Amino acid sequence: MRATIMFGAGDVRVEEVPDAAIVEPTDALLRVTRACICGSDLWPYKTMAADETGQRMGHEFIGVVEDVGGEVRSVSRGDVVVAPFVYSDGTCDFCAEGLHTSCRHGGFWGVNGVDGGQGEAVRVPQADGTLVRLPVEVDDALMPSLLTLSDVFGTGHHAAVSARVGPGAVVAVVGDGAVGLCGVMAAHRLGAERIIILGRHPDRTDLAREFGATDVVAERGTEAVERVRELTGGEGVPCVMECVGLQEAFDTALGIARPGATIGRVGLPQFDSLPGARTSFLHNVTVSGGIAPARAYIEELLPDVLEGRLDPGRVFDSTIGLEQVPDGYRAMDDREAIKVLVKP
Amino acid sequence: MRATIMFGAGDVRVEEVPDAAIVEPTDALLRVTRACICGSDLWPYKTMAADETGQRMGHEFIGVVEDVGGEVRSVSRGDVVVAPFVYSDGTCDFCAEGLHTSCRHGGFWGVNGVDGGQGEAVRVPQADGTLVRLPVEVDDALMPSLLTLSDVFGTGHHAAVSARVGPGAVVAVVGDGAVGLCGVMAAHRLGAERIIILGRHPDRTDLAREFGATDVVAERGTEAVERVRELTGGEGVPCVMECVGLQEAFDTALGIARPGATIGRVGLPQFDSLPGARTSFLHNVTVSGGIAPARAYIEELLPDVLEGRLDPGRVFDSTIGLEQVPDGYRAMDDREAIKVLVKP
Repeated sequence: MRATIMFGAGDVRVEEVPDAAIVEPTDALLRVTRACICGSDLWPYKTMAADETGQRMGHEFIGVVEDVGGEVRSVSRGDVVVAPFVYSDGTCDFCAEGLHTSCRHGGFWGVNGVDGGQGEAVRVPQADGTLVRLPVEVDDALMPSLLTLSDVFGTGHHAAVSARVGPGAVVAVVGDGAVGLCGVMAAHRLGAERIIILGRHPDRTDLAREFGATDVVAERGTEAVERVRELTGGEGVPCVMECVGLQEAFDTALGIARPGATIGRVGLPQFDSLPGARTSFLHNVTVSGGIAPARAYIEELLPDVLEGRLDPGRVFDSTIGLEQVPDGYRAMDDREAIKVLVKP
Repeated sequence: MRATIMFGAGDVRVEEVPDAAIVEPTDALLRVTRACICGSDLWPYKTMAADETGQRMGHEFIGVVEDVGGEVRSVSRGDVVVAPFVYSDGTCDFCAEGLHTSCRHGGFWGVNGVDGGQGEAVRVPQADGTLVRLPVEVDDALMPSLLTLSDVFGTGHHAAVSARVGPGAVVAVVGDGAVGLCGVMAAHRLGAERIIILGRHPDRTDLAREFGATDVVAERGTEAVERVRELTGGEGVPCVMECVGLQEAFDTALGIARPGATIGRVGLPQFDSLPGARTSFLHNVTVSGGIAPARAYIEELLPDVLEGRLDPGRVFDSTIGLEQVPDGYRAMDDREAIKVLVKP
């Protein structure tokens, strides 16, 4: 079958790989019908050392169940299902706590003999815990929004939950990538009254306004901090969502945090230490969040997507076939596209 | 009057200073009857650059009201009162949120013309918001425990609250100083089921056991992490209280944190950045806490002290007069004393 492999920075190829197949009785075999490229895929795209073996790519996908192992009970052949970006058994104590990313039998796509999502098919371990059936046809118009439940919308939601966003909240979202945009929508859904997005791409911040942002701050660095403080009467913001992962974004998040604030961070950190240990201490600023347990949120978010109240799929502004995936990486890395949807 | 001044590392003196006096109509004048030396006083004691002017010291004290300004309503001459380690108006939005350390009219003792607590008398700004009347006589046997409400017990309590300690919790307390010991007592009070203290001074960890600790880990660094993991079935601990402020203590706190854990940190950080930005991200570990809003907790903790259910005053293992304060600093710095009480 065909699947995406990254061989180093800037070197993504679609190549022949062994066909996906059931290995464990808890596996399902999925034919991928929708996948996408994640902002986090761009970190290795910028920095990965050349490697002949390469790295299978993709961790967000929807597909049709083609086969199941003997112990799989919750899905069966022909089901249309969405997979979160970490597989999980759904039964361990961490899964019970909603922390599926720490599942005792879970893992990441594309490593340890598990396929990546940017390909024709995937072996899904822990199928009963991992997959969620979608009550739609395989080409339903809702597919882009349903696909965001695998990662990007769940991640934006995790940022909002981690930042303790609730009814009436004053929120800032650092970053206007697809996660930041989904974060705006998630904060709006949770009842935030004021949502300030920090981003400098007008097409993205325009979409943020449609998703519920009330203010746009296009400045960066200390100027952004000053501008947010101006907008909040010198106060800073009690709920800050850090949706980038660069140290300068975290610096900004801390700079705009009101005393007692909570920073919900979901940007995969490209730095070793969280700056401002004393500042956050003196102002009792909490730093929360992390890798989003997307699986935990699918059932909660799904009805809003199915019933048309939320359309996070609007973050996809480009659709390509599997063979065009290398172009998709380039387009996202060049910021020609916010997020690229793949139809294998 | 006589008061304590630090002129540099290791150089603490008790000297004549101008008498404390009412300046603002919201001030009270307090004759100090009990004060103490804080673990945080030891940081400048180790590192302060020589300075001819010097720094007035002390931020934990109980006293008798000698005079009040014209606008003070809640205390009057002769009242026995305790002051928290930050003064605050008690009326601003931050005070209303329980974050008195960020009060809009608050501040620290010993700076900006405000006296320090390690002296004969103190001008107390924002007396109505700051002071809490104690229904006891000036030499009541409960004085040591009541004095801990000014900082050390409130700080231990803040660590527990920030680490989300509740009934049945499994807790680790990093540090066996007075704050760590009070943290153990606070966690026990909040219903923790298991309390592991990390400390290597048997006299202190023995006291920790009396305060409610169920396990003692005397190892340090990676060995301490391994030992705590052994004690918790390889798991780590969901509620971690960091009561030191050194980077190695934070490293330990992060090392023993279970996925999804919350670290409540109250040790004044002697480092710039919080290490482990990626580790805490991958395991969704929240870092909370900061400078303790002790004022917010006094009313809650006071009945347990007055009615004898809690005796945090046992952290004081030395009592001295005001002129002996320099010896008190030396004793605490040499770890001859856990915490030194001062009777001016």
